[in-house]
Amino acid sequence: MAPIGFIGLGIMGTPMALNLLKAGHTLWVYGRRPETMTPLTAAGATACTSPTEVARHSDIIIVTVSDTPDVEQVIFGESGIIHGARVGAIVIDMSTISPTATQAFATRLHAMGVEMLDAPVSGGDVGAINATLSIMVGGQPEVFEQVKPLFEIMGKNIVYIGGHGAGQVAKACNQIVVAITMQAVAEALTFARKNETDPARVRAALMGGFAGSKILEVHGQRMLDHDFKPGFKARLHQKDLNNVLQTARELGLALPATALSMQNLNALVGRGEGDLDSSAVVTLVERIEGIVS
Amino acid sequence: MAPIGFIGLGIMGTPMALNLLKAGHTLWVYGRRPETMTPLTAAGATACTSPTEVARHSDIIIVTVSDTPDVEQVIFGESGIIHGARVGAIVIDMSTISPTATQAFATRLHAMGVEMLDAPVSGGDVGAINATLSIMVGGQPEVFEQVKPLFEIMGKNIVYIGGHGAGQVAKACNQIVVAITMQAVAEALTFARKNETDPARVRAALMGGFAGSKILEVHGQRMLDHDFKPGFKARLHQKDLNNVLQTARELGLALPATALSMQNLNALVGRGEGDLDSSAVVTLVERIEGIVS
Repeated sequence: MAPIGFIGLGIMGTPMALNLLKAGHTLWVYGRRPETMTPLTAAGATACTSPTEVARHSDIIIVTVSDTPDVEQVIFGESGIIHGARVGAIVIDMSTISPTATQAFATRLHAMGVEMLDAPVSGGDVGAINATLSIMVGGQPEVFEQVKPLFEIMGKNIVYIGGHGAGQVAKACNQIVVAITMQAVAEALTFARKNETDPARVRAALMGGFAGSKILEVHGQRMLDHDFKPGFKARLHQKDLNNVLQTARELGLALPATALSMQNLNALVGRGEGDLDSSAVVTLVERIEGIVS
Repeated sequence: MAPIGFIGLGIMGTPMALNLLKAGHTLWVYGRRPETMTPLTAAGATACTSPTEVARHSDIIIVTVSDTPDVEQVIFGESGIIHGARVGAIVIDMSTISPTATQAFATRLHAMGVEMLDAPVSGGDVGAINATLSIMVGGQPEVFEQVKPLFEIMGKNIVYIGGHGAGQVAKACNQIVVAITMQAVAEALTFARKNETDPARVRAALMGGFAGSKILEVHGQRMLDHDFKPGFKARLHQKDLNNVLQTARELGLALPATALSMQNLNALVGRGEGDLDSSAVVTLVERIEGIVS
């Protein structure tokens, strides 16, 4: 099997890389903090000192870092992928970043003979561990077909969306829907509570009908319990909606409910609760301050 | 079996009453427009000339009308239920109205020896026809137990929520979640389209994950097709959110996303599209004017 590079060994990247190792792949890994490489080298991967070194050894290089500037740095920076990549190599960016920046990165790489796919994921650390991630892919369809077996090792619902950036667009849509539905459930459960009606019974009654959603099921329960362990951190959700709203502004598109959700995430982060699960927005509807778990 | 009264023979009431007749119940019916009684009398019901007459013949009186003033009129008006009801009768209001008004009505009826349940439904005309409605019930638990077999003839997911008005609170929560989730899906699909990304593929990719909901499934498809046949009419959704926001104001509760949805429903109704399905809010995000199907 072709040697694979893996850059970015956070809460998502580490279990994804471990699943590739388990499937028998040879892995060259790099994490900014050296200690993040220990679980991987223990499982048989080879540690590298830079993205350049990862690229030198790999035909396919997977990137899972935080935001657009991180991806840019990892690919085009001083010790970036481009200084080691062979012609014909494939960069798979599984981070969640800007769709328009993704298109620009893909164009720059293509001019150097390197192909790129954007393949952001949804499903959280549990999905990464259990290899049940949803993976939304943008790029050339033939490149997608070539690396699809790798996606199938890391996830379950693998959907090819369209050209470069389309995977990031789909992920952005996911973050829009999740944030606003979270607000919907928060307002409904608080309305019930304020009316002295048991919000747990209301949640149960709503589950089977048109109001039913994964958010009502999972995050609705977290809101009832005031259990805001992430899950998905408010400050990362804030980062994603910031990308969405930047892109919407460029497109001349008004997204009022997305903007409202962004304001609530700003408020959470501003009061030092950015590391809580983003379902903590319910405390803003409830007007309960200073929940830090 | 005890004789049952049925008042309000609209798109919901008619199939619900027919299901009771099919189950073998004796029905005394009243509809403001006499022609609405024809399908019922053809199926064996007896037509009455007023709510008072219905009440004279019935131990249990079901009401399915439009809004709070209609329910008040049917129960307490000049030819209302109270002028014919026996002591020990039960009024079941299956309309969607104000929770606080419901509590007041129940108190007034109780003083006259008449019990009341609020039992609004969710599931639309299809649910009414197929007897698959969700029914959310408020009132005395022993009264609920007594009439539960009737609910089981008309619906499937029957949930006792709590005291008087609690059924209406649950239904209000349902309408909050449905309206805001509709906005979430509308913004996401429009974001995809504006990014020249296929919104149908995005919808498919989102369905299995945290963004998955009944609204994404059913109304997301309607938005893609621009098929706005109701379904549930925007002007009725507007009426429901108006009740929610009135109650929220009384409670000192801010519901910003509900208020945003209300504005969009106002805009739809204002441009003469109040009879479209409320998923037509997507046209406001798209800035497409004058869709009248």
